[in-house]
Amino acid sequence: MDASSSPQALIGPRFKRMANAIRALSVDAINKIQTGHPGLPLGAADMATVLFTQFLKFDPKNPDWADRDRFVLSAGHGSMLMYSLGYLNGYEAMTLDDIKTFRRLGSRAMGHPEVDLEIGVEATTGPLGQGVGMAVGMALAERMMRERYGSDLVDHYTYALVGDGCLMEGISYEATALAGHWGLDKLIVLFDDNGISIDGPTSLATSENQQARFEAAGWDWQAVDGHDPEAVAAAIAKAKTTSTPSIIACKTTIGLGMPVKEGTAAAHGQPPTDAEATAARASYEWDYAPFEVPEDILADWRAAGARGSVDQAAWKARLDAADASTRDEFLGAIAGELPAGWQDIIDAVKREFAEDPKDEPTRQSSQKVMSKLIPAIPTMIGGSADLTPSNLSRPDAVRAISRDNFAGRYIHFGIREHAMAAITNGIALHKGFLPFCATFMCFSDYCRPAIRLSALMKQKVLYIMTHDTITQGPDGPTHQPVEHFATFRATPNMLSLRPADAAEVAECWELALEAEDMPVAMILTREKVPAVRSGHSEENLCRRGAYVFAEASAKAEVTLLSTGSEVSVALGAKKLLEEKGVPTRVVSMPCLSLFDKQDADYRASILGTDTLRVSVEAATVYGWEKYVGPDGLIIGLDGFGAAGMPDELMEHFGITPKAVAAAVEARLAKTKA
Amino acid sequence: MDASSSPQALIGPRFKRMANAIRALSVDAINKIQTGHPGLPLGAADMATVLFTQFLKFDPKNPDWADRDRFVLSAGHGSMLMYSLGYLNGYEAMTLDDIKTFRRLGSRAMGHPEVDLEIGVEATTGPLGQGVGMAVGMALAERMMRERYGSDLVDHYTYALVGDGCLMEGISYEATALAGHWGLDKLIVLFDDNGISIDGPTSLATSENQQARFEAAGWDWQAVDGHDPEAVAAAIAKAKTTSTPSIIACKTTIGLGMPVKEGTAAAHGQPPTDAEATAARASYEWDYAPFEVPEDILADWRAAGARGSVDQAAWKARLDAADASTRDEFLGAIAGELPAGWQDIIDAVKREFAEDPKDEPTRQSSQKVMSKLIPAIPTMIGGSADLTPSNLSRPDAVRAISRDNFAGRYIHFGIREHAMAAITNGIALHKGFLPFCATFMCFSDYCRPAIRLSALMKQKVLYIMTHDTITQGPDGPTHQPVEHFATFRATPNMLSLRPADAAEVAECWELALEAEDMPVAMILTREKVPAVRSGHSEENLCRRGAYVFAEASAKAEVTLLSTGSEVSVALGAKKLLEEKGVPTRVVSMPCLSLFDKQDADYRASILGTDTLRVSVEAATVYGWEKYVGPDGLIIGLDGFGAAGMPDELMEHFGITPKAVAAAVEARLAKTKA
Repeated sequence: MDASSSPQALIGPRFKRMANAIRALSVDAINKIQTGHPGLPLGAADMATVLFTQFLKFDPKNPDWADRDRFVLSAGHGSMLMYSLGYLNGYEAMTLDDIKTFRRLGSRAMGHPEVDLEIGVEATTGPLGQGVGMAVGMALAERMMRERYGSDLVDHYTYALVGDGCLMEGISYEATALAGHWGLDKLIVLFDDNGISIDGPTSLATSENQQARFEAAGWDWQAVDGHDPEAVAAAIAKAKTTSTPSIIACKTTIGLGMPVKEGTAAAHGQPPTDAEATAARASYEWDYAPFEVPEDILADWRAAGARGSVDQAAWKARLDAADASTRDEFLGAIAGELPAGWQDIIDAVKREFAEDPKDEPTRQSSQKVMSKLIPAIPTMIGGSADLTPSNLSRPDAVRAISRDNFAGRYIHFGIREHAMAAITNGIALHKGFLPFCATFMCFSDYCRPAIRLSALMKQKVLYIMTHDTITQGPDGPTHQPVEHFATFRATPNMLSLRPADAAEVAECWELALEAEDMPVAMILTREKVPAVRSGHSEENLCRRGAYVFAEASAKAEVTLLSTGSEVSVALGAKKLLEEKGVPTRVVSMPCLSLFDKQDADYRASILGTDTLRVSVEAATVYGWEKYVGPDGLIIGLDGFGAAGMPDELMEHFGITPKAVAAAVEARLAKTKA
Repeated sequence: MDASSSPQALIGPRFKRMANAIRALSVDAINKIQTGHPGLPLGAADMATVLFTQFLKFDPKNPDWADRDRFVLSAGHGSMLMYSLGYLNGYEAMTLDDIKTFRRLGSRAMGHPEVDLEIGVEATTGPLGQGVGMAVGMALAERMMRERYGSDLVDHYTYALVGDGCLMEGISYEATALAGHWGLDKLIVLFDDNGISIDGPTSLATSENQQARFEAAGWDWQAVDGHDPEAVAAAIAKAKTTSTPSIIACKTTIGLGMPVKEGTAAAHGQPPTDAEATAARASYEWDYAPFEVPEDILADWRAAGARGSVDQAAWKARLDAADASTRDEFLGAIAGELPAGWQDIIDAVKREFAEDPKDEPTRQSSQKVMSKLIPAIPTMIGGSADLTPSNLSRPDAVRAISRDNFAGRYIHFGIREHAMAAITNGIALHKGFLPFCATFMCFSDYCRPAIRLSALMKQKVLYIMTHDTITQGPDGPTHQPVEHFATFRATPNMLSLRPADAAEVAECWELALEAEDMPVAMILTREKVPAVRSGHSEENLCRRGAYVFAEASAKAEVTLLSTGSEVSVALGAKKLLEEKGVPTRVVSMPCLSLFDKQDADYRASILGTDTLRVSVEAATVYGWEKYVGPDGLIIGLDGFGAAGMPDELMEHFGITPKAVAAAVEARLAKTKA
């Protein structure tokens, strides 16, 4: 829908009043609760009004319409813009009551936008720059979906509204470089160019030429007066015609209408006083009570909000007319369904692993599983931050995407871990794909703000994290995760899986695919591990998070709790201990959070009662007291790793069968003494 | 020293042979151990030889000479370049034996460079992009030191060698934007422009115009043939004359000389086979045994390495001739000394706090302490990632630096948390300052890779982390740290301090300033906390990490372990419990790692024996079992926070005096039942 077919006149009092409705609601909400960020909603109301009334394709009655345009408020602190728009556009779930209780517990008008399609919020934003990355991911997903299903079913734009903060963040450069590289022409960014950040004028901290910067990344750049609706509309119309992603710098006044604060850093995050709210309303010529939107303006907004229903109905008709297999595949992809019988693949791989057990790195076992899953699960796509041959994240047959080929299923993200994770979040949010991404576990640090958002947004993103501990060896401590184990496990709503060998890898992949509404970290070794599981198990033994891997030869005196590559260390220690007459059990704990969910009896039966409990994991000792108890022994690292060959390091840090057995014996002797 | 005064001829067989000495040593070392990254040392040997023999001001006999030029190998995987240079230049601590045991445990030639001045390694690198940030920090430190002490004492360049990986990382954009903004003209980056990354040609993942990108950020750009020593020398000479930071793209062939692998991704990280090593040596016309450097070439190198001793001696003479107070101040700053009597300031602040106790946010108490410390400690400098008025990290009287004024002591980093932390690392590594930086605790995620390096490099960087939990409230879960508490505490070699009120803030600042060889996180509240400590304590009660804050009225049944703002919650719960006849102790635990270092008796005396132990902290429950034991109670968050007013949230999550008391009573009832 272009500007000419709009039901709204772009100039004159009605436009201004529509934009001022956003402003008034924002002022009122923030004034009432006395917390929030007026700067952006007041400054960006005009550009948002142009976008939402003239361009954005959406239907508040069908908020999850798959072919809607996406809009991401990357500058998430301006959340009142979203809630004002949600209410004005006619999303039933966004009520005036929510706005009146903005930022209160239980209000749908939360402090920062949290993904909630029913009110038109596509992504959780606030941590700056994330929205840029997610918008790139959505635009990429659209392009890949369009390649698969044709433009009858998939043909939409992705818009993002960003501020100076988003553009200063490193992640925004990474993401825009990729968008330019891929030529994502249906990505349009509106830059709220108000020249102000929290510390003051942006000139305090930046003198970058934004135009040159974006052009260097292959973007189209325009600059307009952000308070001139016709200029903004013309710029968006032009941006829709470019063959590259576009950014439109909209020069605005932050906090427009607030006396004194307007145009200053104080407008960013300081709520207006009652007097300021009154003065602001007066400057908008808004002669209504707080939270009142006059009927004619509301009607204008609702008409604008309703206009997408025509497109939505036409799209629905096209979907209904599509051949059944295309429709089913499309709808299944959007719903995140896996093809029937996918578990059989896992089962077959497990049987293969059992019949021909191989000592190999778990990253390699994982690649074998992926090489079976990817052909069978068409929605599975993903890539690596330039560690493909190390992460083993790309089965041979999988082709990469490029600017000229969006039929591929592998993504070369470059050395951009942070944007990789945010883009993968955007792909997941868009729906239609089951996305994965890969890097060294240690460099999950670079992805952390985006990983956190995966968990907070309940998005199923698969993080393939290889080179999982000091056994990655000679690269040294810069590349050896230590504290990361605690970070992953302490992150709410996230599954962290660390399989011990090929069989557990297959089982963990099953758990990863089964996971709902949460990201998954698949933590894998660089180095070869022995195939410790013998024979095929129908049951997924990893499902309960921990299980007895090897029973003691007699009434157990010791329980060794271990994960990943250290399960084989524990088995070696058990052998030595048993030889010395110490009956020892070995427990494999591929997923602590799943284990924590089991009932107390199960947990006690696994952890062992009346035995010395010893954890063996070549990572931070932090957190293991929960499992070994106050009298247990924790074998791990209380410092960083070191550079050396894997065997040297395991010996140095006392994580060999011999060292574990010796530590256990010493403890037992001390206890008995 | 410019090219004309060089003892080396730039063209002809001697230059080539000198550069090939780097190549041969690198090939031999990587071939022998069969792990490492030959691509960079072989590709960048020419440019490095030009830089080290013609330009770099350094003295292997005085490796910590304060006015040496700094060189940072940001592309740290090319570590054999550093070790070859170290040996060839005559750093005694870098021996051929180290090179022969490259990447083995105990070798000084570690997998990636780890800061070690005695072998010429200025910074730990490997995690890509960090070196760019640290180099910017070093260049900034130089500029600020020069402002203070004059160019007689401080006048050096900072060089960084970066690869495509560094330049794709978001942190490099953030850091280069700041370097351009500040106009750091003595910063010169050599870009090893080989067009190859691990996944293949860089064209797989990028099509950015690097020249335009750097020019947009205010840098001077040159591009030369990186194997043409005269061209490289001319470019460096020109770069030294610009009024902006400079980058020189040196077009090189990765892995030059390795058959088949040369010019391909395989050269990056695959060690040469014996046959490839032989072929490579042949291509260098290097007719020597492995690890053999002929005497004439070694002599050339040693002569080049020794040439800085003249400059060093001249500098030393200038230092000796300087007036005593300047010299003492300069040397004290470099040594990281604090002015005598600084503890008296802490003591005076503590007394003020005790005499006029105020309920205030701990970030505000911290600002009060800083406002006393900064005038008294001239080396203290720092800034915020655009959250100055929220972090309260800038006492009023402190002026900011700018391109035109490097006498200031406050740094507006813009919304660039990651570069902020890396730059702060660079300032610390440079020496001369005690640097701090600030952001919301939740956004420590953006700084994580650099925070990790602070700890690994043992650098004293003060991280001021405000808005420390759900009490930051209405911004919602995107801004509320949860798992971060576990991350900080699990990070080796880092002090995490979370004071309960103004008195503890002052004490924690004392601990922060006393800390040696480690970074410190000062974790502070946004919200007001009661002044819970009464009276003045001569002793720093926080020093042992935890102490009994309030004894029980009778033999204790319960010990409440709490930190930060939750100490007052615990005190409220104690009151309620005591009223119900349950004698209750309250322990404040501002620093778990310091507490862990105390002897067993002290720890037992604090944690309490024969009492129910209950932790109260509005953050992840992960890790508290260590302190409460298997029968204890952990009150905290097992999920993310939520948007709401602080009181609403504490009530919602059950972290109020009433809720804590009720949970304790319920547990006691269960235990007794």
